[in-house]
Amino acid sequence: MNTYSKSREEFARAVKVIPSGIYGHQGPAEGCFIPVDAFPMFSQRAKGSYFWDVDGNRFIDYMCAYGPNVLGYCDEDVDAAARKQMELGDCITAPSTKMIDFAELLVDTVASADWAFFAKNGNDVTTLAVLTARAYSHKKKIVFFKGYYHGVAPWTQKVDYAGILEEDVCNNLYVDWNDYDQLERVFQENKGQIAGLIAQPYMHGNFQDNQFPADGFWAKVRKLCTDNDVVLIVDDVRAGFRLDLAGSDHYFGFEADLICFCKALANGYNVSALCGKDFLKNTVSSLTYTGSYWLSAVPFAAGIACVEKMRRLNLPKLLQEKGEKLRDGLLAAAKRYQFDLHFTGAPALFYLRIADDPSLSLHQEWVAECVKRGVYFTNHHNHFLNASLTDGDIAETVAVAEEAFEVLRGRHPL
Amino acid sequence: MNTYSKSREEFARAVKVIPSGIYGHQGPAEGCFIPVDAFPMFSQRAKGSYFWDVDGNRFIDYMCAYGPNVLGYCDEDVDAAARKQMELGDCITAPSTKMIDFAELLVDTVASADWAFFAKNGNDVTTLAVLTARAYSHKKKIVFFKGYYHGVAPWTQKVDYAGILEEDVCNNLYVDWNDYDQLERVFQENKGQIAGLIAQPYMHGNFQDNQFPADGFWAKVRKLCTDNDVVLIVDDVRAGFRLDLAGSDHYFGFEADLICFCKALANGYNVSALCGKDFLKNTVSSLTYTGSYWLSAVPFAAGIACVEKMRRLNLPKLLQEKGEKLRDGLLAAAKRYQFDLHFTGAPALFYLRIADDPSLSLHQEWVAECVKRGVYFTNHHNHFLNASLTDGDIAETVAVAEEAFEVLRGRHPL
Repeated sequence: MNTYSKSREEFARAVKVIPSGIYGHQGPAEGCFIPVDAFPMFSQRAKGSYFWDVDGNRFIDYMCAYGPNVLGYCDEDVDAAARKQMELGDCITAPSTKMIDFAELLVDTVASADWAFFAKNGNDVTTLAVLTARAYSHKKKIVFFKGYYHGVAPWTQKVDYAGILEEDVCNNLYVDWNDYDQLERVFQENKGQIAGLIAQPYMHGNFQDNQFPADGFWAKVRKLCTDNDVVLIVDDVRAGFRLDLAGSDHYFGFEADLICFCKALANGYNVSALCGKDFLKNTVSSLTYTGSYWLSAVPFAAGIACVEKMRRLNLPKLLQEKGEKLRDGLLAAAKRYQFDLHFTGAPALFYLRIADDPSLSLHQEWVAECVKRGVYFTNHHNHFLNASLTDGDIAETVAVAEEAFEVLRGRHPL
Repeated sequence: MNTYSKSREEFARAVKVIPSGIYGHQGPAEGCFIPVDAFPMFSQRAKGSYFWDVDGNRFIDYMCAYGPNVLGYCDEDVDAAARKQMELGDCITAPSTKMIDFAELLVDTVASADWAFFAKNGNDVTTLAVLTARAYSHKKKIVFFKGYYHGVAPWTQKVDYAGILEEDVCNNLYVDWNDYDQLERVFQENKGQIAGLIAQPYMHGNFQDNQFPADGFWAKVRKLCTDNDVVLIVDDVRAGFRLDLAGSDHYFGFEADLICFCKALANGYNVSALCGKDFLKNTVSSLTYTGSYWLSAVPFAAGIACVEKMRRLNLPKLLQEKGEKLRDGLLAAAKRYQFDLHFTGAPALFYLRIADDPSLSLHQEWVAECVKRGVYFTNHHNHFLNASLTDGDIAETVAVAEEAFEVLRGRHPL
């Protein structure tokens, strides 16, 4: 069973010089996501489907750095392309033509992409999408689906979050996912005022089972946006490329006006992209939007190698198969010990919940037992698969999960 | 004389798949910054103080990728540290302890740093600083000095910029740089409503000579902020480390509450940092603020190597000396042909203006003649020096500048 004394020592050092020691999902401040005692806090190295923590524990990693690791850590093809570009230069006064090559590749790969604009954070491109919708339409309001996550810019936070003003979010409209009638009503009530609608391709929020779009939902939303001249923005930062290399809108049979990519774009190299339709290209050009590292060549070279390899592997099919194998194993293990495990969302970015206990504490207990045994799940966030995950990894995961269910059933007899 | 046929060909390819072809300062859309015909558009490689464009022209580069290149392109020490970390991993589910090492190094180096929070863009940390000021104070308004640049987030743009709403900027107050009486009046008029004041350490805006703080200005501003419980934010994204490794606030003899770093932090590797005083650490911890790549280890390893090398070199002194040598040469060359060249700001990030012509077109003409001869200046933005610039480079620069003045004088006789 894993122990974490070195992780704890390092955390004690971290908290002296970094607010909250570790921030973001991995931070103990977000206790709801992670049962802190069972989890490693700092990694030492990573390769393929594994990372090793500072105590020497090895984990089969189902978080994949919250998405970026899509081919496997330290992928040889991507790293070779990056190293080759590093010899030439990275962040240079005039950009490399690798930027053009990467844009051409995305236009060739993504169905709704007539062009690509590169930045660094997912947040940079969701914000750019909203600016584009407003500049194009000369309208202010943006429609969100409740349970959304589109980054951390003030406009996408909540008014009761620290530091956020009413002015930051006063043009946001919130609608329940999959409730087309409500959406139509909101469009009607705000006629002539809505610039854009931003949505993940399906609902993969926290603390609840993921939900696919209802039959015909996206087709109706697409038509409603078109009829009202509202820019339809798909935030594919999280799901992008794992469902469909042509974009998650393509997977669900519609076309976005703007689509945001980040995580799986370059296997961890730092780049994000907004892609979109021709009618919005001049609007994007009219905006004031740039950053110090946005034209750096190494992430472009890595991104090209990553997208080409995802195409070669037919990544979505591969991840679907691995995910289904994992799903079948986990559900059978749960059944053996009579737990009602829900495995929802796309198998490539599955969400887990033990539904026997609405407080979710049983679920947290089970996740902790898995993590202590070297299978890195997290509590209330979707997971991510990568291409390097082997059948052996999946078998080991299922065995660990089963042992964790057994421990749980021992503690909580029927 | 340089020609750019390949750059033009590549641009024709770029504009098909990227809004405006190249965005940001290097883009031809920003025609005011660059005389397009004289400039290369795409680089092929870079080393030390030079980059080579796709036509094979070599440039002595005084833009340094708009700041990140502080030690010289492809610096061997920084790149070796990055490559070593790449073997272990970069963007991993649990962060590397390199994050802690880097935070400790910044706390040890920067006078006003009790802690460090890392992100990706300068914009990420200026926004974090404003959120922190608002969350700490429960007030809304932010004071800016006219001519500021703090990134591209909506709150820092102007209401007449495309896509920007009145709501984005309605809590901004604008004051003239170096006008303490005006600042005091604005504080008085908005008593109890001001969360923070954000400022570059000196005025290094575009289209005008850079301006240092007036005698005693910063001491008075510091006191005014303290007396009114207003968080004093120094945006050191552009000037950081080139003036003073302890921070540009330290250079000007005061202490910021929050200080933003980005460009010179890791010699082009993608990282930014907010540093600040202990009394704001818990507030930062309370914010919702993270990003996919923010805990990546390679930029931390590169940043450590970069800061250590800047310390070893005593970088600010080195750049000051190089800058003064360049200044003396350029001013003498201008004088020889009776041009009134202004060389303002810190020598390490100097601003150039030929003051004979208020339309600035004479200046643009001169810059174009320099660039066509392989000295990469830009028109109305400050420049940047890097540690690898040699005396030979400076001599070559001065010779080119003199030739450009001669050409200009021929066209515009006295």
